[in-house]
Parts: sequence; structure tokens; C-alpha cells
Amino acid sequence: MTGAVRLLGLDPGLQHTGWGMVESIGNRLRHLADGVISTDADQPLAERLCTLHRGLAALIEQWRPQEAAVEHTYVNKNPGAALKLGQARGVVLVTPALAGIQVAEYQAMEVKRAVVGTGHADKAQVEAMVRRLLPGATIRRSDAADALAVAICHAHHRGTKLAYAKGYVPA
Amino acid sequence: MTGAVRLLGLDPGLQHTGWGMVESIGNRLRHLADGVISTDADQPLAERLCTLHRGLAALIEQWRPQEAAVEHTYVNKNPGAALKLGQARGVVLVTPALAGIQVAEYQAMEVKRAVVGTGHADKAQVEAMVRRLLPGATIRRSDAADALAVAICHAHHRGTKLAYAKGYVPA
Repeated sequence: MTGAVRLLGLDPGLQHTGWGMVESIGNRLRHLADGVISTDADQPLAERLCTLHRGLAALIEQWRPQEAAVEHTYVNKNPGAALKLGQARGVVLVTPALAGIQVAEYQAMEVKRAVVGTGHADKAQVEAMVRRLLPGATIRRSDAADALAVAICHAHHRGTKLAYAKGYVPA
Repeated sequence: MTGAVRLLGLDPGLQHTGWGMVESIGNRLRHLADGVISTDADQPLAERLCTLHRGLAALIEQWRPQEAAVEHTYVNKNPGAALKLGQARGVVLVTPALAGIQVAEYQAMEVKRAVVGTGHADKAQVEAMVRRLLPGATIRRSDAADALAVAICHAHHRGTKLAYAKGYVPA
């Protein structure tokens, strides 16, 4: 369809990386697919990162998104946890970039504001709104909801108005 | 040469990633090349990680190492710095693994012990020993010395005895 743009939202994690593919058509958004790439904690780190890269590269090959977006992680945990998350995040950022896809980053508050209307929403509110805005989303794990949320945020910020479900009035 | 194995040592960093290529032949070690892959701090993060990946992939293509080794980073800094380092480290681990090269990880103390003989050596001692053990090393930045040190450690741990420079007596 003319003007349709495919967007890939990503929520990085070494154990589970959420992903969500949406299509932005004019001022509307359509859910295409979502899921989680999981890695085996018993494998060596480099192998886990390979699993993550290959899973992501296969998704990009299958869906051919034109743009990608990742939440800018705020780390308040210990440095060890931040290092672990960073390793997964590095692979999640580099994989679309290597495929020639521009990767946007958004602060968590921007994502919440774009999806729920306030920067102080909790995880359950974000997921509920993602389900309303994107009927058909499967979201087997919350990581996929977070990934779809960042895709929605990116659609919003690249100038697209969201298609609120008919009759829905934001709180 | 029969029995010769090429080893790639890596010291990850977002700004500068050190690398060192050595050849292990029987109980001897030979320096092949070393250097640093640097990224432009003005570029978006995903682009910087691409520069790192492409630089590393080109090295692997040129030198065809059979094994790689990375120091297991101990992070005592703030979580933000750990996340940043983690992102570079993820790319540094995944790039050789994607090329089918096994990536070993070593604790900083193991590296120091293998190179200097004690786990409590300082950076200057490590660099001085790397220069003794690997005549011909260029080491324009200390990152390259750290990378060569982890390559030496890997050679040691995979059962190879180091070729101490003739006449050199460890302190």
C-alpha cells in the first residue's frame, strides 16, 4: 500500500528479547506480528548472543521493516545486571543497523506518554493500551508488549497519528 | 606450519576496542598484528556498533583466527558506564561467534597471572611483559596491549607454553 511503513519495535534482554512488527499507514497503525526471542541460559554467552542475532536477522529478512526503535534503557540495577543487559542491547541495536535499517531510541517516559498519554503509567497500563491500539497482538510475554509500545511511540514521533480503537476515550 | 593456531585477543570498549592477533606454534607464540578499532562519539549508538562489528569482521576475514578470547569484564563503575561497555562487549562477542569462532572468556586475574606471573600486576607491568613476550607488537594504545594479553592467556590455558624472550627471567 502506498505510504505504508513497517516498523520494528524491540525490547532487549539477554534471556528474552521482545519484538513487535507494526505497519503505519497514513494516520493508522496495524499490528503485523509480535513475539519473543529467548536464549538458553546454559549456553555460553557468545552463543546466546548469536541466537539473539540470528533470530532478529531472520525476522528482518521475513518482515523487511523499514525502521526500528528501541527503548533507551534506564539502569538503576547493579553494574553486573547493566553489563548483561548491555550485551544483549548491543546485539539488538547492531542487527537492524547492519541490515541498513535506521534505529531510533526513545526514553521510557516518551514511550509511556505516546501509548498511555502519561509518562508515569505502569507496565499493566501500557500493555492494556497496546492491546487496545493494536487488536490482534498476541503478546505471550510482557516483553512483546514493551516492544510493540516502542513501535507505537516511534510511529507517533515520526508524525503518524495513532488510530485509537473506535469509541475509545483516553483516561 | 603444522600445529599453528591463530588466536584473536579482544579488549572491548565503545570508544576503542583493542585487538591482537597471535600465532601459537607448539610451545611458542608469535605476534602477527595488533591495533584498535575506534568509533566516532558523534555518531548514533547503532552506527558506532556497526563500525565496531564491520572493523572486527574485516579483521577476521583478513587474518582468519581459529579461536578468540575476551577478558571477562569486572564492572565496579556506575550502571550507566556498565551498560555502555556491555553494548560494545555484546558486539565484540557476537562477531567472531557468528564467523564460527569459539570465544573464550578469562577473568582479569587469570590474564595477569598468565602474562606477568601474578594476578595483582598493574597495567604498566602487563604492557611491559606483553612487549617482551611478543617482540614486534606495535601497541599504539593500551587497549591493544590488553587484547594481546588476553590472547597470551588463552594460548597458555589451551595448553601452550609461552616462549619467554631468550634470557628473560620472570621477577
